[in-house]
Amino acid sequence: MNTCKCSKAESDRERIETLSAQPEGKGLVTIEEEPIIGETPQAILKSWLTPNPLFYIRNHYTIPEGVSDWELTLDGNVEDALSIALQDFHSFPIQTLPITLECAGNNRSDLEPTVPGNPFQNGAVSTAIWAGVPLRHLLERAGVKEGSVEVLFEGFDSGEPAPGESHQPYLRSLPIDVAMHPDTLLAYEMNGEPLSREHGYPVRLVVPGWYGMASVKWLKRITVLQENFVGFFQTDRYIIESDDGETVPVAQMHVKSLISWPAEHMHLPAKPHMINGMAWSGFAHIAKVEVSDDGGKTWQSADLVGPRYRYSWQQWNFAWTPKSSGKYTLVARATDEDGNEQPLETRWNSLGYIINGVRPVCVEVE
Amino acid sequence: MNTCKCSKAESDRERIETLSAQPEGKGLVTIEEEPIIGETPQAILKSWLTPNPLFYIRNHYTIPEGVSDWELTLDGNVEDALSIALQDFHSFPIQTLPITLECAGNNRSDLEPTVPGNPFQNGAVSTAIWAGVPLRHLLERAGVKEGSVEVLFEGFDSGEPAPGESHQPYLRSLPIDVAMHPDTLLAYEMNGEPLSREHGYPVRLVVPGWYGMASVKWLKRITVLQENFVGFFQTDRYIIESDDGETVPVAQMHVKSLISWPAEHMHLPAKPHMINGMAWSGFAHIAKVEVSDDGGKTWQSADLVGPRYRYSWQQWNFAWTPKSSGKYTLVARATDEDGNEQPLETRWNSLGYIINGVRPVCVEVE
Repeated sequence: MNTCKCSKAESDRERIETLSAQPEGKGLVTIEEEPIIGETPQAILKSWLTPNPLFYIRNHYTIPEGVSDWELTLDGNVEDALSIALQDFHSFPIQTLPITLECAGNNRSDLEPTVPGNPFQNGAVSTAIWAGVPLRHLLERAGVKEGSVEVLFEGFDSGEPAPGESHQPYLRSLPIDVAMHPDTLLAYEMNGEPLSREHGYPVRLVVPGWYGMASVKWLKRITVLQENFVGFFQTDRYIIESDDGETVPVAQMHVKSLISWPAEHMHLPAKPHMINGMAWSGFAHIAKVEVSDDGGKTWQSADLVGPRYRYSWQQWNFAWTPKSSGKYTLVARATDEDGNEQPLETRWNSLGYIINGVRPVCVEVE
Repeated sequence: MNTCKCSKAESDRERIETLSAQPEGKGLVTIEEEPIIGETPQAILKSWLTPNPLFYIRNHYTIPEGVSDWELTLDGNVEDALSIALQDFHSFPIQTLPITLECAGNNRSDLEPTVPGNPFQNGAVSTAIWAGVPLRHLLERAGVKEGSVEVLFEGFDSGEPAPGESHQPYLRSLPIDVAMHPDTLLAYEMNGEPLSREHGYPVRLVVPGWYGMASVKWLKRITVLQENFVGFFQTDRYIIESDDGETVPVAQMHVKSLISWPAEHMHLPAKPHMINGMAWSGFAHIAKVEVSDDGGKTWQSADLVGPRYRYSWQQWNFAWTPKSSGKYTLVARATDEDGNEQPLETRWNSLGYIINGVRPVCVEVE
């Protein structure tokens, strides 16, 4: 676990101020303008629901132009290939789920030594109420044949993923059992509104519990495969080196927490305060959150409050009475019901994914 | 239960078109412009979460001017009266809850004979994620004394509630046990955003499970009482005649459902459709929703889908294959886990509250 480095954090703060003059005044902390990449500001991480304009964005290519006469193709290893228009979604059941999505590279700027890639702080994580049709219903209507192992998703967006790579659409696959899970959604609605262009209008995939790269936007085609898909964003990126040198794909979100309030470097009056934050895991409900005010030497349990749902983050409160004036290093760590513990230190990796080590917040009590 | 009256419904549709040219382009179906009263459009009742600009509004007086230096007073039968500024809310625990609010006069335009009052159709009901501080924590800090029976809430809004009545603030009380319930909120956030002026900025009461009149906006003062409050919106309005001639206050939302899709008078192709809607009760979770396509002669169970939370409406789906072309009268009825059944007929009352009889939707299959 990093101890407080006030000078680094102050330069981060300047960076936010410099970068937050956002096109369209949307209030995200801009990481890149083309394609759009931006994170949710710290002040908004205090809200359990993220308003749509402040939901983090990590696009890989330019937003595709308005998709007129949109139809979704479902083909590959199925009995009957389908072509489905937006109005045909009325013939399938609606499903609505609160789901937290986190970018696999969230907190990348905390890594030392530094790595290339978008230098996210802790705001590439957001929560919305998603509505759509479970993908399973479309797959069942098409009839998935024996021998299917994965389902491939193609977005309408395309480009060169890296210098020297060919022009290609955004492509990602899911194991067949994840694609068939009743909570894997073809979402057309986010917080009661149709998807915005930035978030995948008209229809995107939302894979609950998985890092955001799996939730392919602007869906064009779904193909049932008899073999594992190989592609840039599947096998060259969103992978992590295991201890034995193998590469492992990034999949479910690892257990993690953040402190929403107080913010870094706040000066607080010497009285009781309610520290609060969020915790989440793609594997299970959050079982406990512990808080330390001495940089991790001693820990106390926080109260889990608010909505307690399978795929959305868990809000927590911790009533804190500082013993005296001075500097405090506040840290929080979460454990999920599968027994996964948030590590004190992130496992460094060269592409900068799954950065879930605890993150200190330094405050001064007056 | 009313059978379909297409001519009446058509004039309702014209009315929507006439009235929906809303100031500020907010998209509500306007019932009154001053004070603002508007309902959620039918097309939005299909979404489990209601976007803030489309959340129904039933104000009683003009929205109070910007409340600068806001402080909330808590006094009356307490050990220590309090005065609390917005920043002091940081010292209390956050609570977040998905809550459906319905106006007690929702569906008033369905009553026959007609009654005075805002002629709501079925859109004075909406759902948001509310965040704030449980009122209980403030009451505990002040110390509620023996002999307290009610808590009175005063808004910053005021006016003459009816011709001949004195100028007065909006005032409503709650029984002490409801005020002390851990889920009764002093809300400052709605769907992740600070409250808008229309919805009670900076802080409003939100009483889960109760009709909307209890959730006092623009809170100014909270007073613990040793007697029952008597006042216009407590004892002259929001009351209903019981069978024995007594008046009973309107309180918790009675069990009810609505059909979100299809909309009234839709022409549908002769193929399977997914009828869907919402159901809610202030008393308990929804246990079942039944659907009839023959005006209530025969019933079949719908699937309860999506979030299943104590205080928010329950989404439901019903896979319907029309037997032949022609006109169909679709109806839905809900039952809650306390055994309360949505009635086929609303119990008519002269002020037009608790209009929860089933409401037919007429469609034509081509």
